[in-house]
Amino acid sequence: MSRRTISHETGAIYEFTPELEPIATVESGAQLTVETRDSLDGAVQSESDVLESVPAEVNAATGPIAVEGAEPGDVLRVDIDDIRLTEDRGRVISVDGFGLLDGHEGIEAPRSRITPVESESDGDGDGNGNGNGERAERSDATLSIAGIDADVPVEPLIGTIGVATESESHTTLVPHDHGGNLDTTDLCAGNAVYFPVFQAGAMLAMGDCKAAMADGEMCGTGAEIGTAIDVTVTVLSDPETELERPLIETPEAWKPVASADTLEAACEIATRDAIELLAAEHEVDTTDAYLFASLVGGLEISQVVDPLVTVRNAVPKAYLSAPF
Amino acid sequence: MSRRTISHETGAIYEFTPELEPIATVESGAQLTVETRDSLDGAVQSESDVLESVPAEVNAATGPIAVEGAEPGDVLRVDIDDIRLTEDRGRVISVDGFGLLDGHEGIEAPRSRITPVESESDGDGDGNGNGNGERAERSDATLSIAGIDADVPVEPLIGTIGVATESESHTTLVPHDHGGNLDTTDLCAGNAVYFPVFQAGAMLAMGDCKAAMADGEMCGTGAEIGTAIDVTVTVLSDPETELERPLIETPEAWKPVASADTLEAACEIATRDAIELLAAEHEVDTTDAYLFASLVGGLEISQVVDPLVTVRNAVPKAYLSAPF
Repeated sequence: MSRRTISHETGAIYEFTPELEPIATVESGAQLTVETRDSLDGAVQSESDVLESVPAEVNAATGPIAVEGAEPGDVLRVDIDDIRLTEDRGRVISVDGFGLLDGHEGIEAPRSRITPVESESDGDGDGNGNGNGERAERSDATLSIAGIDADVPVEPLIGTIGVATESESHTTLVPHDHGGNLDTTDLCAGNAVYFPVFQAGAMLAMGDCKAAMADGEMCGTGAEIGTAIDVTVTVLSDPETELERPLIETPEAWKPVASADTLEAACEIATRDAIELLAAEHEVDTTDAYLFASLVGGLEISQVVDPLVTVRNAVPKAYLSAPF
Repeated sequence: MSRRTISHETGAIYEFTPELEPIATVESGAQLTVETRDSLDGAVQSESDVLESVPAEVNAATGPIAVEGAEPGDVLRVDIDDIRLTEDRGRVISVDGFGLLDGHEGIEAPRSRITPVESESDGDGDGNGNGNGERAERSDATLSIAGIDADVPVEPLIGTIGVATESESHTTLVPHDHGGNLDTTDLCAGNAVYFPVFQAGAMLAMGDCKAAMADGEMCGTGAEIGTAIDVTVTVLSDPETELERPLIETPEAWKPVASADTLEAACEIATRDAIELLAAEHEVDTTDAYLFASLVGGLEISQVVDPLVTVRNAVPKAYLSAPF
């Protein structure tokens, strides 16, 4: 089965809303290649291209893609099969008014650094992926940055991925229960992410990929870059567990993902989600699940810079089976 | 060289202050076994022992131990060679007024759960450790908790470890620049932690160990338990790098550790520390170090429950050599 390619040239959104018009409609189980632009829409091609402020339109998300049969209350499973870079360079920037250390002494904005990518061994260049749904091998590509004599492994991830919202509207700069700008290193090849379906067709869109990013994304970006993302999309109808916000599955853990005004508030939500899953699985009350959750896995920072901040709570699979 | 044992029966503190009287004085390079009580001083021996509030004295820290030659401005390196459990059970509890989900619906306090420990293969029971300074193998011991049919690997860590403060006083419930109640999973066998020396002799003390703990320590405790900790203490005189607060070394990374009123503020401090190390190593300005730090390693949550909260920022050793 060949993958269907969905290009950013066909359509992209800058806002997740309840009412989105699909640029493509696919069956549940479809294998897709989704092509994405860099989050800055190509505005930074050299280090002299600097941004005075965060653009009004940022994080173009290719889509929306309607998945047949997805209805409100369902869950949309997105397997991230592979992420290939489609540019030979990324960019990491500081922008006035944005970033963890914005306004700190010695932190200058605007500044742009280009991160050239070398020896992408995985790139066959046809944008069609391996087509067999196997998990991708990590490539041996590296990137570099001027002034620092060290190569950084390329570990691509999706910054923004989500579905149509229940009732509110969020620009693609915002992470929330629909997904959006989650900026989470676990959104990488080999993992799956589950979203609540709020609207018929789910209306999946994604973009804002990075060639590399630290947990926290402190300066406000990773190495922003265009990609071709291989995903498999599956509707889980009438799920056993009600899903309120994104849930990531890695080979080792289930990770509820929560975004809120403060890290503390996000930690509370992600922990509540984790202990509700544990309580259901082990048939204990939420207090016992809370005490147990305080012994294993735990809280992880996704990003601390977007309009809402994002954390996840990792529950090792040894203690939690698939909730759907 | 045999290890010198320092027992909690000889002395323990509940407050880190500038003026501490040592219960023992050792040479730089000394190999010690430090015996610690559980953080609740044995108050919870069964699930019917519940705490109505956090005790006025909690987290007894065995010590202080004066290290000869340590002077203000120096760095004290503490290699954690091994942590052995000295009890056959830990305890994890909820207490009214404490914990991430304190007051949330469905979260009951007080509650105590005992975590029996089984098959501690590493315990020779003599409390003297392996005596050769080698890094400990992970034991195959597990613990369990009533109601949940799953064994948890025992991965002991030190909850509270620190030195005499510069000028202020902090109870052993508080983490700050002197260390204290850091509750960080990386404070485990095989890692080292570096402290600024604020007072002559440094005055090291430690306790509050856990048989297991999640990143975040959400309910407010891990599996609290008595231990025998093998450490090697070394004074680094006139260090090349000025150290303002704790720094952890793991086999893979250097991790500045910061505590503050909010997670956001702690993230800022830990990130500043990380980028200052990167800037010095690579001879770039702090802005370029900031952009680079946003691509590798990143922010990790230690604990979200103590009077100040604690995070760390991991910089992989591939990009940072020893700062001292």
